[in-house]
Amino acid sequence: MATRPHPPRGMRDLLPEEVRTRRLLLERIIGVYERYGFVQIEAPVLEEIDRLLGSQGGENEKLLYKVLRRGLDWPPATEAEAIDLGLRYDLTVPLSRYYATNADQLPSPFKAIHSGPVFRAERPQKGRYRQFNQCDIDIIGESALLAEIELVAATAEALQACEVGEVTFRMNDRRLLTQLVRSCGYDEAQFGRVLIAVDKLDKIGLSGVSEELATLENPRAATMLTETLGALDGVRGVDDTLRELADVVEEAVLEDLQTIARGVAAAAPQVKLEVDATLVRGMGYYTGPIFEIEHAESAGALGGGGRYDQLLKNLSGFDAPAVGMSIGFERLFDLLHGTLKKTAETKRLAVLYPKDANYADVARLCQDARRGGAIVRREASVKNRSAQLARLEAQGFTHWCELRNGELTRQQQLATEDHEKGNS
Amino acid sequence: MATRPHPPRGMRDLLPEEVRTRRLLLERIIGVYERYGFVQIEAPVLEEIDRLLGSQGGENEKLLYKVLRRGLDWPPATEAEAIDLGLRYDLTVPLSRYYATNADQLPSPFKAIHSGPVFRAERPQKGRYRQFNQCDIDIIGESALLAEIELVAATAEALQACEVGEVTFRMNDRRLLTQLVRSCGYDEAQFGRVLIAVDKLDKIGLSGVSEELATLENPRAATMLTETLGALDGVRGVDDTLRELADVVEEAVLEDLQTIARGVAAAAPQVKLEVDATLVRGMGYYTGPIFEIEHAESAGALGGGGRYDQLLKNLSGFDAPAVGMSIGFERLFDLLHGTLKKTAETKRLAVLYPKDANYADVARLCQDARRGGAIVRREASVKNRSAQLARLEAQGFTHWCELRNGELTRQQQLATEDHEKGNS
Repeated sequence: MATRPHPPRGMRDLLPEEVRTRRLLLERIIGVYERYGFVQIEAPVLEEIDRLLGSQGGENEKLLYKVLRRGLDWPPATEAEAIDLGLRYDLTVPLSRYYATNADQLPSPFKAIHSGPVFRAERPQKGRYRQFNQCDIDIIGESALLAEIELVAATAEALQACEVGEVTFRMNDRRLLTQLVRSCGYDEAQFGRVLIAVDKLDKIGLSGVSEELATLENPRAATMLTETLGALDGVRGVDDTLRELADVVEEAVLEDLQTIARGVAAAAPQVKLEVDATLVRGMGYYTGPIFEIEHAESAGALGGGGRYDQLLKNLSGFDAPAVGMSIGFERLFDLLHGTLKKTAETKRLAVLYPKDANYADVARLCQDARRGGAIVRREASVKNRSAQLARLEAQGFTHWCELRNGELTRQQQLATEDHEKGNS
Repeated sequence: MATRPHPPRGMRDLLPEEVRTRRLLLERIIGVYERYGFVQIEAPVLEEIDRLLGSQGGENEKLLYKVLRRGLDWPPATEAEAIDLGLRYDLTVPLSRYYATNADQLPSPFKAIHSGPVFRAERPQKGRYRQFNQCDIDIIGESALLAEIELVAATAEALQACEVGEVTFRMNDRRLLTQLVRSCGYDEAQFGRVLIAVDKLDKIGLSGVSEELATLENPRAATMLTETLGALDGVRGVDDTLRELADVVEEAVLEDLQTIARGVAAAAPQVKLEVDATLVRGMGYYTGPIFEIEHAESAGALGGGGRYDQLLKNLSGFDAPAVGMSIGFERLFDLLHGTLKKTAETKRLAVLYPKDANYADVARLCQDARRGGAIVRREASVKNRSAQLARLEAQGFTHWCELRNGELTRQQQLATEDHEKGNS
């Protein structure tokens, strides 16, 4: 017996019921974002390799799928000679390139919905896929904090529309982080490695971060930073956090966080928004406020984002402020698949016919039955009628009938569905 | 001044209005297919390179985007060592692999909708893209011709739902082609090259095909085939074609074509279905009836498909008959973008506010305005009010108001829309 083939390592097939849930989720999310004035765009899944490698994508750059140049003389001397394209690892870099390409044809500020697959060759593990979907909104061309407020309010509402239950938005600011780290006595050159250590706080705890900081030079700064992180532990209220940091962080940065918090509270009072001064987020391209979305039942963040005012300039030479928020669509799906309430079903009719029936009759009668808008599936009869009906029922069919003497018999409801309908 | 970056060569960005049309088209197509009992699936865009290269995908295999193995020692000695994955060039090979992987969890026969991007490194030219979308339906596990009948009827209805106007389905059978070529005196070994020549009939005409056949051995067969092709020229009626070929093609094959024609006529009498005994279609994996969809205003086929009863066995060792039909989504889009009637719009409201407005007020008032289901976009006021309103109108906004003294002014209709509404 042949062995079943598999999709590529770390990637997965989606079964019909899964695709259905995903479509529903995406429709609801995009529906909300459209009401906020965002418009959907699409960019190719491939981008030029140099653009992907030069975009401060942090760890994700190492996880690139690289595409062989076509018509290559073999063997190529170097990898750089061998490859020209890569599969995108997020939607932010392609969006920035897209905006630089098409700005003349886009409104300003530009409010984009961008949804689709991204690719990262991560070590396969539960709940992580090498091809996975993201659903982003971004505002390009607006430096006002109204953009941040809107991203949070719209994303919170989109998640609500998906019936996700309570989420918490954690907020920080890249400027706050660098000012905090500088105030402890670290040099600019050390910032990157220090932030990588701080980013692990959730996973390895304060003592773990402290150990990691000890491996860098500057033990005094390490002690000071560890102390500050300890003092911030559990402080989540906006005012409390700002008070704690008043001495080391510029007032303008703290005021920005305050403005965002007030705006979100006014627009979407149901949203739980906390400041977490230890939040880092991996990407090097963030320049201002950053966000992460937490859910009690999700192992990792349900999404996140932030301001990246320099990325467009770095990628394309065109300068424009930008801020984005990404929903981790796979996490959302894993959380909701199976529980999402689906909207009322249309009638689903199975038409049974003898194997030797006239094909023209079968095709015509099914077509007639379809006219009222029902989902109609033809199926050759098998001997065990009750087993066949039970199977159809399990597949979600609500009615059946059969072809007899060139006509369809009266449609009958399938038992369980009938019963469920009576209860609903 | 920096130059605008471009998407990768041969690929394109989709503007918001384009994405909107595409979503509408896809919704309508999938809506029809679902009513025929098809269910949507999704597979990764990457597949293992050996599977893609060994699937008789014809010319398309040469157009593969190949993906570099991760963690490769550089330089690799051979290409085979360097690559492990490829981007799919169609949806049929991935679907076959998907079915072999997941058959235990799928109904039988399995009726799949499969839609998504495919990739071919073709020479860029007008209307051809290196990443493009296909939308396929396939029936796996059914050898009865009811499957073919259903694919034609459903696809015709899906195209109708897209308001595409008249299309013609051309039908042929791979067995007919091989029997016809054999009857002229060609060896099995020559079939492939002969069919490649016949496939060009539309492009280079009978004399061109004749010249190409002359480059192969066997001039007598070439003369005979040219004569037969000439006799078939313009013969499109099912009965006429079958009569013309009664001597050289098995009756069973001709009867199958007749059965399909009768079934389609019964189920979907509006469908124009012709037999074209010169229709080849490129893929080597077809084994029975094949189809191509023609539209007077489309340069190439709008779609096509056929039966591929051996592909599953070749790819996976699991045996199952299969037949599929693919809509060339890009051609359909090119044909319809700009003319597709869109369904009634929701209200689109622009809220203008002074740049120094209180952000919390703006966010809250926009949120209030959104409650009724309207699309609400906030926009900072500019000095030239009439230019701003004209721009909003051009972007499809139907109403506007402004923030004044902490409240929104009465909503006013934008002139043109108002006017258009009066006329509609």
